[in-house]
Amino acid sequence: MPLTAHAITLAARPKGQPQLSDFAPVTRELGDPGPGQVLVRIKWLSLDPYMRGRMDDAKSYAAPVPLGGVMGGEAVGEVLISGSPAFKPGDTVIGPFGWCDHALADAGTLRAVDPALAPIQTALGVLGMPGLTAWVGLNDIAQAQPGETIIVSAATGAVGSTVGQLAKAKGLRVIGVAGGAEKCAYAVETLGFDACLDHRTPDLAAQMAATAPEADIYFENTGGATLIAALPCLKVGGRIAVIGAIAWYSGQNSDQTLPLPAVWRMILTRRLRVQGMIVFDHHDRRGAFLAEVAPMLAEGTLINRETVAEGLNNAPDAFLNMLKGGNFGKQLVRVG
Amino acid sequence: MPLTAHAITLAARPKGQPQLSDFAPVTRELGDPGPGQVLVRIKWLSLDPYMRGRMDDAKSYAAPVPLGGVMGGEAVGEVLISGSPAFKPGDTVIGPFGWCDHALADAGTLRAVDPALAPIQTALGVLGMPGLTAWVGLNDIAQAQPGETIIVSAATGAVGSTVGQLAKAKGLRVIGVAGGAEKCAYAVETLGFDACLDHRTPDLAAQMAATAPEADIYFENTGGATLIAALPCLKVGGRIAVIGAIAWYSGQNSDQTLPLPAVWRMILTRRLRVQGMIVFDHHDRRGAFLAEVAPMLAEGTLINRETVAEGLNNAPDAFLNMLKGGNFGKQLVRVG
Repeated sequence: MPLTAHAITLAARPKGQPQLSDFAPVTRELGDPGPGQVLVRIKWLSLDPYMRGRMDDAKSYAAPVPLGGVMGGEAVGEVLISGSPAFKPGDTVIGPFGWCDHALADAGTLRAVDPALAPIQTALGVLGMPGLTAWVGLNDIAQAQPGETIIVSAATGAVGSTVGQLAKAKGLRVIGVAGGAEKCAYAVETLGFDACLDHRTPDLAAQMAATAPEADIYFENTGGATLIAALPCLKVGGRIAVIGAIAWYSGQNSDQTLPLPAVWRMILTRRLRVQGMIVFDHHDRRGAFLAEVAPMLAEGTLINRETVAEGLNNAPDAFLNMLKGGNFGKQLVRVG
Repeated sequence: MPLTAHAITLAARPKGQPQLSDFAPVTRELGDPGPGQVLVRIKWLSLDPYMRGRMDDAKSYAAPVPLGGVMGGEAVGEVLISGSPAFKPGDTVIGPFGWCDHALADAGTLRAVDPALAPIQTALGVLGMPGLTAWVGLNDIAQAQPGETIIVSAATGAVGSTVGQLAKAKGLRVIGVAGGAEKCAYAVETLGFDACLDHRTPDLAAQMAATAPEADIYFENTGGATLIAALPCLKVGGRIAVIGAIAWYSGQNSDQTLPLPAVWRMILTRRLRVQGMIVFDHHDRRGAFLAEVAPMLAEGTLINRETVAEGLNNAPDAFLNMLKGGNFGKQLVRVG
C-alpha cells in the first residue's frame, strides 16, 4: 500500500548565508520495499555543519545535493516493512536517509542501532559521526598526549564538547572557545574544561595568548577569529586537526583571516603539522571508539547535550540557527 | 701570534629585498685558540635561503643576526692550530663559522669532514644540510612511496635537485618547477625529472593541472606562484612538506597568494597533511642519510651542481643573486 511521505528539498543554491527560501517541502509516494530494501519511519534527523557545503555546486569530498533533490543527512528510524533478512519490523536503524519522515532504503546502506546501549539519537551524535570525528581527530590526527594543552573551537558543539571531555579524561589541559558567556560557563562548569574564551570578544587573541601561550594542539572546527587567535599560540611541533571551518562556510567572516605567507611561515618555523580529516575515512575505528566512549556515556563521565527541533518542517530553521551558533550541543530534529 | 681575519657583518636590517649596503666587511684580530678551541681557516662558505630570515628582527626558529654581527652560516675549513684533542692541524672540519675567512671555534661545535668521501664542499650541500633536508623531507615528512607523483619547487636548487633525484630513484614520478627554460631543460635532461615547468610563465596553473592533475606530494621550497599552481593538483591524502618559502622571504610576491579560507577548505576536503620541517631537528637521521646518498654521489647516480662565488667579499652579491634565483644548484663561496 503506498504511503505518502514528506521530505525537505534544496530549492535554491544559497548565495552566502542560506535562507529559509532555499528549502522546500515535498510529498512523495513510497511503495512497499523490494527485495533487499526496507521501509523506515524516521525518528531522529541529524543536522551537521558539513551539510552547508553540500548545498553549493562546488567540488568537495561528496557530491552536491542536486537542485530539487532531498537534503542529505544521517537519521535514525524504525523498520516498518523489511524486504531484507538483515532487518525485521521494529528494528532501529541508522542510515543516510536524508531530511524526510519515511524512506525506502537498501539494507546494505544501514546499520542496526542497539536501543539498550544508549538513547537511540546518540547514534547521530556522541556515539555517532560527531563522536567518532572527535575521537579520531584527537587520537589519530592530533595524536594528543597526556600533559599537553589543546585549544578546542566550537567547544560546546557536538564535536567540540566531546573533544574537550575526551581530552580532559586523557590528561590534557583544555582551553575551549565558544560563542557567548553562557556556552563558555557551561564548558568550564559542566564539561570540566580548564578555561573557555568567547570568540565574540574583540581581544580574543590577547586572551588566548594569556591563557594558552604554549599550546600543543588546535582542534579546528571554525576557522575565523578563533584560528587567528590560536595559531600564534602553538609551540614548536604543534598540530592542527582541521575538521571544519564553519565560520567561513557561507563566505562570511572573510575578513577574519591571515595572509597565507604568514601562515606558511608559522608552519615552517614552528614545524607545525596541519591535517584535514573527514570521518568517512575512519569507519574502521568505530569499534575502538565505541569501546572507549560508550561506557563513559553510560557512566555519566561524558556529558551529552542536545538541541532538539520538533518536526521535520522545522529542520531548515534549526539548520540555519545552528550555522549561526544558536544550538547548544548536538543539533537534532525529532521527526516523529 | 694574532691573525688579522676578515668577516662580513649585517650593517642594516633590509626592508624587503636585501641590498649590498645591508652588509659590511670588517677585520678582527684572532688570538691563539684556548683550551678546547681550534683556529680554522675557512675554505668554503655555504649560502642558503634561510639566512634571509636571520636578517630580520623577527621571532623564528633561530635568533636573528644582531646588527653589526657577523652573518651566520655553515662553512668548511682546515684546522690551523688546535687546543683540543678532538682535532689536529690539517683536519677538515665543518661548523657554524659564519661569513669569515678565519675563525676561533669551540671544538664541540664542529664535525670532522672526510676528504676521501667526496669533495669537501659537498658537506655543505648534497651531503650536508640541504641534502639532509631533501632526504628527511621526502622520506620522513612527505613519506613518499614508489609510484606516487611529487611536485618539487625550486627544482634545480640545492634541496630541490636532490629531492627530485632521490624521488626518481625511489620510483616516483617527478614534476619540477624552476625559473626559466635553461633550468627546466637541465631538470629534465640532466637530472632526469619527468617534466619541469617554468614558474615565470603566466599559465603555470593550467600547465600544472595538465601535467600533474593527481599529485600526491608537493615539496614546498618557494610559496608564491608555484604553491598556487600545485595546491589544486593534490589529491585526497596529499602531503605538503614545507621546507621554505623563498618567494615570500623579503615580503615580495605578496600578491601571489591564496585566501586562507580556500586553503583551509582544500586541506579539509582533500584531507591534506601540511607539515613544516627544519633540518636542525633531524640530525639523528644523518647516518641513514649518508649511508644512502654518499654512494649515489660517488657512483654518479646523483648529480650535484654548484654555483661558486670567488672570495669572501663576493658573498653578499652571491647571496642577493641566489635570493632572485640566479644560482644553479648549490650556492657556495670559495673563501680561500
